[in-house]
Amino acid sequence: MSLVIVGSIGLDTIETPVGKVKDALGGSAVYGAIAASYFTKAFTVGVVGSDFPQEHIDLLKKHDICIDGLEIKDGMTFRWVGKYENWNQAQTLDTELNVFGDFNPTLPESCLSCNSLLLGNIHPDLQLKVLEQIKSYKYAAADTMNYWINGARDRLDEVIKRVDIVFINEEELKLYAREKSVYTAAEVVLSKGPKLLVLKRGEYGSVLISDELMFFAPAYPIVEVKDPTGAGDSFAGGFMGYLAQVGEMTQQNLKEACLYGTVMAALNVSEFSVIKLANHSFEHIKLMVEELKSWMKI
Amino acid sequence: MSLVIVGSIGLDTIETPVGKVKDALGGSAVYGAIAASYFTKAFTVGVVGSDFPQEHIDLLKKHDICIDGLEIKDGMTFRWVGKYENWNQAQTLDTELNVFGDFNPTLPESCLSCNSLLLGNIHPDLQLKVLEQIKSYKYAAADTMNYWINGARDRLDEVIKRVDIVFINEEELKLYAREKSVYTAAEVVLSKGPKLLVLKRGEYGSVLISDELMFFAPAYPIVEVKDPTGAGDSFAGGFMGYLAQVGEMTQQNLKEACLYGTVMAALNVSEFSVIKLANHSFEHIKLMVEELKSWMKI
Repeated sequence: MSLVIVGSIGLDTIETPVGKVKDALGGSAVYGAIAASYFTKAFTVGVVGSDFPQEHIDLLKKHDICIDGLEIKDGMTFRWVGKYENWNQAQTLDTELNVFGDFNPTLPESCLSCNSLLLGNIHPDLQLKVLEQIKSYKYAAADTMNYWINGARDRLDEVIKRVDIVFINEEELKLYAREKSVYTAAEVVLSKGPKLLVLKRGEYGSVLISDELMFFAPAYPIVEVKDPTGAGDSFAGGFMGYLAQVGEMTQQNLKEACLYGTVMAALNVSEFSVIKLANHSFEHIKLMVEELKSWMKI
Repeated sequence: MSLVIVGSIGLDTIETPVGKVKDALGGSAVYGAIAASYFTKAFTVGVVGSDFPQEHIDLLKKHDICIDGLEIKDGMTFRWVGKYENWNQAQTLDTELNVFGDFNPTLPESCLSCNSLLLGNIHPDLQLKVLEQIKSYKYAAADTMNYWINGARDRLDEVIKRVDIVFINEEELKLYAREKSVYTAAEVVLSKGPKLLVLKRGEYGSVLISDELMFFAPAYPIVEVKDPTGAGDSFAGGFMGYLAQVGEMTQQNLKEACLYGTVMAALNVSEFSVIKLANHSFEHIKLMVEELKSWMKI
Protein backbone atom coordinates (compact mmCIF):
# COMPACT_ATOMS: atom_id res chain seq x y z
CA MET A 1 0.00 0.00 0.00
CA SER A 2 1.00 3.62 -0.48
CA LEU A 3 0.97 6.52 1.99
CA VAL A 4 0.36 10.22 1.41
CA ILE A 5 1.85 12.54 4.03
CA VAL A 6 0.65 16.12 4.14
CA GLY A 7 2.26 18.72 6.36
CA SER A 8 4.81 21.45 6.75
CA ILE A 9 8.15 21.57 5.00
CA GLY A 10 10.59 24.05 6.41
CA LEU A 11 14.06 25.19 7.26
CA ASP A 12 14.67 25.03 10.98
CA THR A 13 17.19 26.91 13.07
CA ILE A 14 17.47 25.01 16.32
CA GLU A 15 19.49 25.22 19.50
CA THR A 16 19.52 22.40 22.03
CA PRO A 17 21.70 21.90 25.12
CA VAL A 18 24.18 19.96 22.97
CA GLY A 19 24.45 21.97 19.75
CA LYS A 20 22.78 24.02 17.06
CA VAL A 21 21.91 24.04 13.36
CA LYS A 22 20.85 26.79 10.96
CA ASP A 23 18.27 26.41 8.18
CA ALA A 24 18.25 22.63 8.50
CA LEU A 25 15.71 20.50 6.67
CA GLY A 26 12.57 19.96 8.75
CA GLY A 27 8.78 19.94 8.80
CA SER A 28 6.23 17.23 9.52
CA ALA A 29 5.85 16.18 5.88
CA VAL A 30 9.61 15.69 5.62
CA TYR A 31 10.17 13.77 8.86
CA GLY A 32 7.04 11.71 8.24
CA ALA A 33 7.85 10.88 4.61
CA ILE A 34 11.48 9.92 5.23
CA ALA A 35 10.50 7.70 8.17
CA ALA A 36 7.74 6.08 6.10
CA SER A 37 9.98 5.58 3.08
CA TYR A 38 11.77 2.65 4.76
CA PHE A 39 8.52 0.69 4.64
CA THR A 40 6.36 1.83 1.76
CA LYS A 41 5.97 4.15 -1.20
CA ALA A 42 5.57 7.60 0.36
CA PHE A 43 4.09 10.70 -1.26
CA THR A 44 4.90 14.00 0.35
CA VAL A 45 2.54 16.94 -0.05
CA GLY A 46 3.64 20.42 0.95
CA VAL A 47 4.89 23.76 -0.23
CA VAL A 48 8.34 25.33 -0.32
CA GLY A 49 9.78 28.57 -1.68
CA SER A 50 12.18 29.08 -4.54
CA ASP A 51 15.02 29.25 -1.98
CA PHE A 52 14.51 25.60 -1.00
CA PRO A 53 17.87 23.86 -1.58
CA GLN A 54 17.97 21.32 -4.39
CA GLU A 55 19.94 18.94 -2.16
CA HIS A 56 16.85 18.52 0.05
CA ILE A 57 14.73 17.62 -2.95
CA ASP A 58 17.43 15.19 -4.04
CA LEU A 59 17.36 13.61 -0.57
CA LEU A 60 13.60 13.00 -0.80
CA LYS A 61 14.07 11.51 -4.27
CA LYS A 62 16.89 9.31 -3.02
CA HIS A 63 14.38 7.84 -0.57
CA ASP A 64 12.06 7.14 -3.51
CA ILE A 65 9.54 9.60 -2.10
CA CYS A 66 7.11 10.88 -4.72
CA ILE A 67 7.30 14.68 -4.80
CA ASP A 68 4.55 15.35 -7.34
CA GLY A 69 2.71 17.01 -4.46
CA LEU A 70 5.64 19.24 -3.53
CA GLU A 71 4.68 22.69 -4.71
CA ILE A 72 7.52 25.14 -5.33
CA LYS A 73 6.22 28.69 -5.12
CA ASP A 74 7.80 32.07 -5.64
CA GLY A 75 8.88 33.36 -2.28
CA MET A 76 10.65 32.04 0.78
CA THR A 77 10.33 28.66 2.47
CA PHE A 78 8.70 28.36 5.90
CA ARG A 79 11.23 28.97 8.65
CA TRP A 80 11.14 28.13 12.34
CA VAL A 81 13.64 29.19 14.99
CA GLY A 82 13.47 27.26 18.22
CA LYS A 83 15.39 26.49 21.37
CA TYR A 84 15.17 23.65 23.85
CA GLU A 85 16.11 24.53 27.39
CA ASN A 86 14.53 21.37 28.58
CA TRP A 87 14.01 18.47 26.22
CA ASN A 88 10.26 18.30 26.53
CA GLN A 89 9.30 21.79 25.47
CA ALA A 90 10.54 23.75 22.48
CA GLN A 91 10.58 27.50 22.88
CA THR A 92 9.66 29.21 19.62
CA LEU A 93 11.92 32.20 19.03
CA ASP A 94 10.68 33.06 15.57
CA THR A 95 8.28 31.77 12.92
CA GLU A 96 8.22 32.97 9.33
CA LEU A 97 5.32 31.30 7.56
CA ASN A 98 6.34 32.63 4.13
CA VAL A 99 4.83 30.50 1.34
CA PHE A 100 3.44 28.07 3.94
CA GLY A 101 1.07 30.85 5.06
CA ASP A 102 -1.03 30.29 1.92
CA PHE A 103 -0.66 26.52 1.84
CA ASN A 104 -3.70 25.07 0.18
CA PRO A 105 -3.05 21.42 -0.52
CA THR A 106 -4.22 20.35 -3.94
CA LEU A 107 -3.28 16.77 -4.49
CA PRO A 108 -1.78 15.70 -7.81
CA GLU A 109 -3.27 12.82 -9.77
CA SER A 110 -0.61 10.41 -8.51
CA CYS A 111 -1.75 10.87 -4.89
CA LEU A 112 -5.47 10.47 -5.46
CA SER A 113 -5.41 6.71 -5.59
CA CYS A 114 -3.36 6.34 -2.40
CA ASN A 115 -4.48 3.78 0.15
CA SER A 116 -3.50 5.54 3.34
CA LEU A 117 -3.05 9.02 4.59
CA LEU A 118 -1.13 10.80 7.32
CA LEU A 119 -2.35 14.32 8.01
CA GLY A 120 0.47 16.17 9.73
CA ASN A 121 -0.09 18.90 12.25
CA ILE A 122 -1.60 21.68 10.08
CA HIS A 123 -4.87 23.67 10.27
CA PRO A 124 -7.84 21.28 10.54
CA ASP A 125 -9.43 23.03 7.53
CA LEU A 126 -6.50 21.91 5.40
CA GLN A 127 -6.62 18.42 6.87
CA LEU A 128 -10.31 18.23 5.90
CA LYS A 129 -9.54 19.52 2.44
CA VAL A 130 -7.11 16.65 1.89
CA LEU A 131 -9.57 14.09 3.24
CA GLU A 132 -12.14 15.30 0.71
CA GLN A 133 -9.78 14.93 -2.22
CA ILE A 134 -8.70 11.33 -1.66
CA LYS A 135 -11.58 8.92 -1.98
CA SER A 136 -9.58 5.75 -2.20
CA TYR A 137 -7.98 5.57 1.21
CA LYS A 138 -8.45 2.57 3.44
CA TYR A 139 -7.49 4.49 6.56
CA ALA A 140 -6.37 7.96 7.52
CA ALA A 141 -4.47 9.28 10.52
CA ALA A 142 -4.17 12.79 11.90
CA ASP A 143 -1.79 14.59 14.21
CA THR A 144 -2.65 17.89 15.88
CA MET A 145 -1.47 20.33 18.55
CA ASN A 146 -2.65 22.72 21.29
CA TYR A 147 -2.80 25.61 18.85
CA TRP A 148 -5.62 24.02 16.82
CA ILE A 149 -7.35 22.56 19.87
CA ASN A 150 -7.64 26.05 21.31
CA GLY A 151 -8.14 27.92 18.05
CA ALA A 152 -10.10 25.64 15.71
CA ARG A 153 -11.81 23.10 17.96
CA ASP A 154 -14.96 22.68 15.83
CA ARG A 155 -13.00 22.00 12.68
CA LEU A 156 -10.67 19.67 14.55
CA ASP A 157 -13.76 17.80 15.80
CA GLU A 158 -14.65 17.20 12.15
CA VAL A 159 -11.18 15.81 11.46
CA ILE A 160 -11.29 13.54 14.52
CA LYS A 161 -14.69 12.19 13.48
CA ARG A 162 -13.42 11.29 10.04
CA VAL A 163 -10.02 9.72 10.68
CA ASP A 164 -9.22 6.20 11.85
CA ILE A 165 -6.11 6.97 13.89
CA VAL A 166 -5.31 9.99 16.07
CA PHE A 167 -1.73 10.77 17.14
CA ILE A 168 -1.73 13.01 20.20
CA ASN A 169 0.38 13.73 23.26
CA GLU A 170 -0.85 13.67 26.85
CA GLU A 171 -1.30 17.42 27.33
CA GLU A 172 -3.08 17.82 24.01
CA LEU A 173 -5.33 14.85 24.73
CA LYS A 174 -6.43 16.20 28.11
CA LEU A 175 -6.93 19.67 26.65
CA TYR A 176 -8.96 18.39 23.73
CA ALA A 177 -11.17 16.05 25.79
CA ARG A 178 -11.40 18.48 28.73
CA GLU A 179 -10.52 15.63 31.09
CA LYS A 180 -7.88 15.27 33.79
CA SER A 181 -7.16 11.59 33.22
CA VAL A 182 -5.58 10.52 29.94
CA TYR A 183 -7.54 7.27 30.04
CA THR A 184 -10.90 9.02 30.40
CA ALA A 185 -9.81 11.51 27.74
CA ALA A 186 -8.91 8.65 25.40
CA GLU A 187 -12.46 7.29 25.75
CA VAL A 188 -13.86 10.69 24.82
CA VAL A 189 -11.79 10.78 21.62
CA LEU A 190 -12.62 7.19 20.68
CA SER A 191 -16.33 7.86 21.19
CA LYS A 192 -16.14 10.46 18.39
CA GLY A 193 -15.20 7.88 15.79
CA PRO A 194 -11.50 6.98 15.51
CA LYS A 195 -10.63 3.30 15.79
CA LEU A 196 -7.31 3.96 17.49
CA LEU A 197 -5.70 6.59 19.65
CA VAL A 198 -1.91 6.71 19.73
CA LEU A 199 -0.82 8.47 22.90
CA LYS A 200 2.67 9.95 22.52
CA ARG A 201 4.69 10.17 25.74
CA GLY A 202 8.06 11.34 24.40
CA GLU A 203 10.99 9.75 26.22
CA TYR A 204 8.51 7.45 27.99
CA GLY A 205 7.22 5.84 24.83
CA SER A 206 3.64 5.53 23.67
CA VAL A 207 0.35 3.82 24.36
CA LEU A 208 -2.11 2.39 21.83
CA ILE A 209 -5.70 2.65 23.01
CA SER A 210 -8.78 1.35 21.21
CA ASP A 211 -12.00 -0.32 22.31
CA GLU A 212 -10.29 -3.70 22.04
CA LEU A 213 -6.64 -2.91 22.53
CA MET A 214 -4.29 -1.43 25.11
CA PHE A 215 -0.58 -1.62 24.39
CA PHE A 216 2.32 0.07 26.13
CA ALA A 217 5.57 0.62 24.23
CA PRO A 218 8.67 2.10 25.84
CA ALA A 219 10.83 4.59 23.96
CA TYR A 220 13.98 3.08 22.48
CA PRO A 221 16.70 4.14 24.96
CA ILE A 222 18.96 6.87 23.61
CA VAL A 223 22.06 7.77 25.59
CA GLU A 224 22.48 11.21 24.05
CA VAL A 225 19.50 13.00 22.59
CA LYS A 226 20.64 15.78 20.28
CA ASP A 227 17.44 17.30 18.93
CA PRO A 228 13.87 16.20 19.67
CA THR A 229 12.38 18.20 16.74
CA GLY A 230 10.34 15.94 14.52
CA ALA A 231 10.23 13.00 16.93
CA GLY A 232 6.45 12.81 16.80
CA ASP A 233 6.41 13.15 13.01
CA SER A 234 9.04 10.44 12.56
CA PHE A 235 7.10 8.21 14.93
CA ALA A 236 3.85 8.76 13.00
CA GLY A 237 5.65 8.33 9.66
CA GLY A 238 7.26 5.05 10.71
CA PHE A 239 3.99 3.85 12.22
CA MET A 240 1.88 4.63 9.15
CA GLY A 241 4.63 3.49 6.78
CA TYR A 242 4.79 0.07 8.44
CA LEU A 243 1.00 -0.16 8.43
CA ALA A 244 0.95 0.64 4.71
CA GLN A 245 3.51 -2.11 4.16
CA VAL A 246 1.44 -4.77 5.93
CA GLY A 247 -1.89 -3.40 4.71
CA GLU A 248 -4.27 -4.29 7.53
CA MET A 249 -5.04 -2.66 10.88
CA THR A 250 -4.93 -5.89 12.89
CA GLN A 251 -3.95 -5.67 16.56
CA GLN A 252 -0.66 -7.40 15.83
CA ASN A 253 0.16 -5.02 12.96
CA LEU A 254 -0.68 -1.97 15.08
CA LYS A 255 1.70 -3.14 17.82
CA GLU A 256 4.49 -3.76 15.33
CA ALA A 257 3.78 -0.40 13.67
CA CYS A 258 4.11 1.24 17.08
CA LEU A 259 7.55 -0.31 17.63
CA TYR A 260 8.75 0.66 14.16
CA GLY A 261 7.52 4.21 14.79
CA THR A 262 9.36 4.17 18.11
CA VAL A 263 12.65 3.25 16.46
CA MET A 264 12.23 5.92 13.76
CA ALA A 265 11.67 8.52 16.48
CA ALA A 266 14.79 7.30 18.31
CA LEU A 267 16.91 7.61 15.17
CA ASN A 268 15.50 11.07 14.59
CA VAL A 269 16.35 12.45 18.04
CA SER A 270 19.88 10.99 17.93
CA GLU A 271 20.97 13.74 15.52
CA PHE A 272 19.90 17.18 14.33
CA SER A 273 17.48 17.50 11.42
CA VAL A 274 17.16 14.28 9.38
CA ILE A 275 20.86 13.35 9.54
CA LYS A 276 20.34 10.00 11.20
CA LEU A 277 16.75 9.43 10.12
CA ALA A 278 17.73 9.67 6.46
CA ASN A 279 20.84 7.52 6.71
CA HIS A 280 19.86 4.12 7.92
CA SER A 281 19.20 0.69 6.59
CA PHE A 282 15.99 -1.22 6.95
CA GLU A 283 18.04 -4.12 8.32
CA HIS A 284 19.36 -2.01 11.17
CA ILE A 285 15.91 -0.61 11.94
CA LYS A 286 14.58 -4.16 12.12
CA LEU A 287 17.39 -5.08 14.49
CA MET A 288 16.52 -2.15 16.75
CA VAL A 289 12.89 -3.28 16.83
CA GLU A 290 14.03 -6.76 17.82
CA GLU A 291 16.12 -5.27 20.63
CA LEU A 292 13.16 -3.24 21.82
CA LYS A 293 11.00 -6.36 21.86
CA SER A 294 13.58 -8.23 23.92
CA TRP A 295 13.46 -5.42 26.53
CA MET A 296 9.67 -5.74 26.83
CA LYS A 297 9.48 -9.49 26.94
CA ILE A 298 8.31 -11.19 30.09
CA MET B 1 12.19 -16.62 52.24
CA SER B 2 11.57 -13.77 54.67
CA LEU B 3 12.01 -10.02 54.22
CA VAL B 4 13.02 -7.36 56.73
CA ILE B 5 11.89 -3.82 55.88
CA VAL B 6 13.50 -0.93 57.73
CA GLY B 7 12.26 2.62 57.38
CA SER B 8 10.04 5.36 58.67
CA ILE B 9 6.67 4.86 60.31
CA GLY B 10 4.58 7.97 60.61
CA LEU B 11 1.29 9.77 60.66
CA ASP B 12 0.78 11.78 57.50
CA THR B 13 -1.44 14.77 56.87
CA ILE B 14 -1.81 15.04 53.13
CA GLU B 15 -3.68 17.19 50.66
CA THR B 16 -3.94 16.28 46.99
CA PRO B 17 -6.06 17.83 44.22
CA VAL B 18 -8.81 15.30 45.01
CA GLY B 19 -8.96 15.19 48.80
CA LYS B 20 -7.15 15.22 52.13
CA VAL B 21 -6.42 13.10 55.19
CA LYS B 22 -5.14 13.93 58.68
CA ASP B 23 -2.73 11.77 60.69
CA ALA B 24 -3.12 8.82 58.34
CA LEU B 25 -0.88 5.76 58.57
CA GLY B 26 2.24 6.11 56.44
CA GLY B 27 6.01 5.70 56.26
CA SER B 28 8.26 3.58 54.06
CA ALA B 29 8.40 0.65 56.51
CA VAL B 30 4.59 0.52 56.57
CA TYR B 31 3.94 0.81 52.83
CA GLY B 32 6.79 -1.59 52.10
CA ALA B 33 5.77 -4.20 54.68
CA ILE B 34 2.08 -4.23 53.76
CA ALA B 35 2.91 -4.54 50.04
CA ALA B 36 5.40 -7.34 50.76
CA SER B 37 3.00 -9.18 53.09
CA TYR B 38 0.95 -10.45 50.13
CA PHE B 39 3.94 -12.51 49.05
CA THR B 40 6.12 -13.40 52.00
CA LYS B 41 6.68 -13.19 55.75
CA ALA B 42 7.52 -9.52 56.32
CA PHE B 43 9.28 -8.03 59.35
CA THR B 44 8.90 -4.32 59.87
CA VAL B 45 11.57 -2.38 61.74
CA GLY B 46 10.90 1.17 62.86
CA VAL B 47 9.97 3.41 65.76
CA VAL B 48 6.72 5.05 66.84
CA GLY B 49 5.62 7.11 69.82
CA SER B 50 3.18 6.22 72.56
CA ASP B 51 0.47 8.07 70.63
CA PHE B 52 0.61 5.57 67.75
CA PRO B 53 -2.95 4.20 67.39
CA GLN B 54 -3.43 0.55 68.32
CA GLU B 55 -5.57 0.05 65.20
CA HIS B 56 -2.47 0.58 63.02
CA ILE B 57 -0.56 -2.07 64.96
CA ASP B 58 -3.55 -4.36 64.59
CA LEU B 59 -3.55 -3.75 60.83
CA LEU B 60 0.10 -4.81 60.56
CA LYS B 61 -0.63 -7.91 62.64
CA LYS B 62 -3.65 -8.71 60.46
CA HIS B 63 -1.23 -8.83 57.53
CA ASP B 64 0.89 -11.31 59.50
CA ILE B 65 3.72 -8.78 59.62
CA CYS B 66 6.18 -9.45 62.42
CA ILE B 67 6.42 -6.34 64.60
CA ASP B 68 9.13 -7.52 67.00
CA GLY B 69 11.24 -4.75 65.44
CA LEU B 70 8.62 -2.06 66.02
CA GLU B 71 9.92 0.01 68.90
CA ILE B 72 7.36 2.01 70.87
CA LYS B 73 9.04 4.91 72.63
CA ASP B 74 7.83 7.58 74.99
CA GLY B 75 7.02 10.64 72.93
CA MET B 76 5.20 11.44 69.74
CA THR B 77 5.21 9.55 66.43
CA PHE B 78 6.93 11.03 63.36
CA ARG B 79 4.56 13.34 61.51
CA TRP B 80 4.68 14.67 57.96
CA VAL B 81 2.43 17.31 56.43
CA GLY B 82 2.50 17.48 52.66
CA LYS B 83 0.60 18.81 49.69
CA TYR B 84 0.59 17.82 46.03
CA GLU B 85 -0.13 20.62 43.61
CA ASN B 86 1.13 18.49 40.81
CA TRP B 87 1.23 14.72 41.14
CA ASN B 88 4.95 14.32 40.68
CA GLN B 89 6.25 16.51 43.46
CA ALA B 90 5.14 16.62 47.08
CA GLN B 91 5.54 19.93 48.81
CA THR B 92 6.52 19.44 52.46
CA LEU B 93 4.59 21.83 54.67
CA ASP B 94 5.80 20.49 58.00
CA THR B 95 7.95 17.69 59.40
CA GLU B 96 8.02 16.68 63.05
CA LEU B 97 10.65 13.99 63.50
CA ASN B 98 9.68 13.31 67.14
CA VAL B 99 10.87 9.82 68.23
CA PHE B 100 12.06 9.11 64.66
CA GLY B 101 14.75 11.76 65.20
CA ASP B 102 16.67 9.31 67.42
CA PHE B 103 15.89 6.20 65.40
CA ASN B 104 18.68 3.74 65.88
CA PRO B 105 17.60 0.42 64.44
CA THR B 106 18.51 -2.49 66.67
CA LEU B 107 17.16 -5.65 65.15
CA PRO B 108 15.43 -8.19 67.36
CA GLU B 109 16.51 -11.82 67.37
CA SER B 110 13.66 -12.81 65.05
CA CYS B 111 14.96 -10.56 62.27
CA LEU B 112 18.59 -11.63 62.40
CA SER B 113 18.08 -14.80 60.40
CA CYS B 114 16.13 -13.09 57.63
CA ASN B 115 17.04 -13.92 54.04
CA SER B 116 16.39 -10.59 52.41
CA LEU B 117 16.39 -6.98 53.31
CA LEU B 118 14.78 -3.76 52.10
CA LEU B 119 16.42 -0.62 53.41
CA GLY B 120 13.86 2.18 53.10
CA ASN B 121 14.83 5.76 52.51
CA ILE B 122 16.57 6.68 55.81
CA HIS B 123 20.03 8.06 56.66
CA PRO B 124 22.72 5.90 55.00
CA ASP B 125 24.38 5.49 58.42
CA LEU B 126 21.28 3.72 59.67
CA GLN B 127 21.05 1.64 56.49
CA LEU B 128 24.67 0.53 57.07
CA LYS B 129 23.92 -0.23 60.70
CA VAL B 130 21.17 -2.63 59.65
CA LEU B 131 23.38 -4.28 57.02
CA GLU B 132 25.96 -4.97 59.73
CA GLN B 133 23.48 -6.65 62.04
CA ILE B 134 22.01 -9.17 59.61
CA LYS B 135 24.60 -11.69 58.46
CA SER B 136 22.23 -14.20 56.92
CA TYR B 137 20.74 -12.27 54.04
CA LYS B 138 20.94 -13.53 50.51
CA TYR B 139 20.32 -10.12 49.00
CA ALA B 140 19.66 -6.59 50.15
CA ALA B 141 18.04 -3.62 48.45
CA ALA B 142 18.18 0.07 49.27
CA ASP B 143 16.09 3.10 48.43
CA THR B 144 17.36 6.65 48.86
CA MET B 145 16.57 10.29 48.04
CA ASN B 146 18.10 13.65 47.05
CA TYR B 147 18.48 14.66 50.67
CA TRP B 148 21.04 11.91 51.38
CA ILE B 149 22.71 12.20 47.98
CA ASN B 150 23.43 15.84 48.71
CA GLY B 151 24.03 15.52 52.44
CA ALA B 152 25.63 12.12 53.04
CA ARG B 153 27.12 11.07 49.71
CA ASP B 154 30.12 9.18 51.15
CA ARG B 155 28.00 7.09 53.45
CA LEU B 156 25.49 6.49 50.67
CA ASP B 157 28.38 5.29 48.49
CA GLU B 158 29.08 2.66 51.15
CA VAL B 159 25.46 1.51 51.08
CA ILE B 160 25.42 1.34 47.27
CA LYS B 161 28.61 -0.74 47.29
CA ARG B 162 27.12 -3.26 49.67
CA VAL B 163 23.59 -3.80 48.38
CA ASP B 164 22.44 -5.97 45.48
CA ILE B 165 19.52 -3.84 44.31
CA VAL B 166 19.14 -0.06 44.19
CA PHE B 167 15.71 1.58 43.86
CA ILE B 168 16.06 5.12 42.57
CA ASN B 169 14.14 7.66 40.49
CA GLU B 170 15.50 9.46 37.44
CA GLU B 171 16.37 12.77 39.09
CA GLU B 172 18.07 11.05 42.02
CA LEU B 173 20.00 8.76 39.71
CA LYS B 174 21.38 11.62 37.61
CA LEU B 175 22.19 13.62 40.72
CA TYR B 176 23.97 10.70 42.37
CA ALA B 177 25.98 9.68 39.30
CA ARG B 178 26.58 13.28 38.18
CA GLU B 179 25.47 12.33 34.68
CA LYS B 180 22.90 13.83 32.33
CA SER B 181 21.74 10.57 30.77
CA VAL B 182 19.94 8.05 32.96
CA TYR B 183 21.53 5.20 31.01
CA THR B 184 25.08 6.46 31.56
CA ALA B 185 24.17 7.17 35.19
CA ALA B 186 22.89 3.62 35.58
CA GLU B 187 26.26 2.28 34.42
CA VAL B 188 28.01 4.42 37.03
CA VAL B 189 25.85 2.95 39.80
CA LEU B 190 26.23 -0.63 38.56
CA SER B 191 30.01 -0.21 38.40
CA LYS B 192 30.01 0.39 42.17
CA GLY B 193 28.70 -3.08 42.94
CA PRO B 194 24.93 -3.56 42.79
CA LYS B 195 23.65 -6.34 40.54
CA LEU B 196 20.49 -4.48 39.61
CA LEU B 197 19.27 -0.93 39.32
CA VAL B 198 15.51 -0.35 39.44
CA LEU B 199 14.74 2.98 37.83
CA LYS B 200 11.43 4.37 39.07
CA ARG B 201 9.56 6.58 36.60
CA GLY B 202 6.29 7.19 38.48
CA GLU B 203 3.27 7.21 36.18
CA TYR B 204 5.53 6.01 33.34
CA GLY B 205 6.52 2.78 35.06
CA SER B 206 10.00 1.48 35.71
CA VAL B 207 13.11 0.07 34.07
CA LEU B 208 15.29 -2.79 35.30
CA ILE B 209 18.93 -2.32 34.35
CA SER B 210 21.79 -4.72 35.01
CA ASP B 211 24.83 -5.87 33.07
CA GLU B 212 22.74 -8.61 31.47
CA LEU B 213 19.22 -7.26 31.62
CA MET B 214 17.14 -4.35 30.39
CA PHE B 215 13.42 -4.50 31.01
CA PHE B 216 10.78 -1.79 30.58
CA ALA B 217 7.57 -2.03 32.58
CA PRO B 218 4.71 0.43 32.17
CA ALA B 219 2.77 1.68 35.19
CA TYR B 220 -0.57 -0.02 35.69
CA PRO B 221 -3.07 2.52 34.31
CA ILE B 222 -5.07 4.28 37.03
CA VAL B 223 -7.97 6.47 35.99
CA GLU B 224 -8.07 8.50 39.20
CA VAL B 225 -4.94 8.83 41.30
CA LYS B 226 -5.84 9.97 44.81
CA ASP B 227 -2.54 10.12 46.66
CA PRO B 228 0.92 9.22 45.33
CA THR B 229 2.51 9.09 48.80
CA GLY B 230 4.21 5.76 49.34
CA ALA B 231 4.06 4.65 45.68
CA GLY B 232 7.81 3.99 45.55
CA ASP B 233 7.74 2.17 48.90
CA SER B 234 4.81 -0.02 47.86
CA PHE B 235 6.58 -0.76 44.59
CA ALA B 236 9.79 -1.75 46.38
CA GLY B 237 7.85 -3.75 48.99
CA GLY B 238 5.92 -5.68 46.35
CA PHE B 239 9.08 -6.21 44.31
CA MET B 240 11.16 -7.52 47.22
CA GLY B 241 8.22 -9.45 48.66
CA TYR B 242 7.72 -11.32 45.40
CA LEU B 243 11.45 -11.96 45.15
CA ALA B 244 11.47 -13.36 48.68
CA GLN B 245 8.60 -15.65 47.71
CA VAL B 246 10.42 -17.09 44.70
CA GLY B 247 13.84 -17.02 46.35
CA GLU B 248 16.20 -16.47 43.42
CA MET B 249 17.26 -13.35 41.50
CA THR B 250 16.85 -14.87 38.05
CA GLN B 251 16.02 -12.54 35.16
CA GLN B 252 12.53 -13.99 34.92
CA ASN B 253 11.90 -13.55 38.65
CA LEU B 254 13.15 -9.96 38.54
CA LYS B 255 10.75 -9.12 35.71
CA GLU B 256 7.82 -10.70 37.53
CA ALA B 257 8.86 -8.92 40.74
CA CYS B 258 8.82 -5.66 38.82
CA LEU B 259 5.26 -6.23 37.63
CA TYR B 260 4.06 -7.23 41.10
CA GLY B 261 5.68 -4.09 42.50
CA THR B 262 3.99 -2.07 39.76
CA VAL B 263 0.57 -3.37 40.74
CA MET B 264 1.18 -2.72 44.46
CA ALA B 265 2.12 0.88 43.63
CA ALA B 266 -1.05 1.24 41.53
CA LEU B 267 -3.22 0.01 44.37
CA ASN B 268 -1.45 2.35 46.73
CA VAL B 269 -2.03 5.50 44.66
CA SER B 270 -5.70 4.64 44.08
CA GLU B 271 -6.55 5.70 47.64
CA PHE B 272 -5.15 7.75 50.50
CA SER B 273 -2.81 6.11 53.02
CA VAL B 274 -2.94 2.30 52.93
CA ILE B 275 -6.71 2.05 52.41
CA LYS B 276 -6.52 0.14 49.15
CA LEU B 277 -3.04 -1.33 49.60
CA ALA B 278 -4.12 -3.06 52.81
CA ASN B 279 -7.45 -4.34 51.52
CA HIS B 280 -6.80 -6.57 48.59
CA SER B 281 -6.58 -10.23 47.77
CA PHE B 282 -3.59 -11.96 46.30
CA GLU B 283 -5.91 -13.35 43.63
CA HIS B 284 -6.88 -9.89 42.47
CA ILE B 285 -3.28 -8.69 42.48
CA LYS B 286 -2.35 -11.67 40.31
CA LEU B 287 -5.17 -10.80 37.93
CA MET B 288 -3.89 -7.22 37.64
CA VAL B 289 -0.39 -8.53 36.83
CA GLU B 290 -1.89 -10.73 34.12
CA GLU B 291 -3.71 -7.69 32.67
CA LEU B 292 -0.49 -5.70 32.70
CA LYS B 293 1.30 -8.51 30.89
CA SER B 294 -1.41 -8.60 28.22
CA TRP B 295 -0.89 -4.87 27.59
CA MET B 296 2.84 -5.39 27.04
CA LYS B 297 2.59 -8.44 24.87
CA ILE B 298 3.67 -8.21 21.26
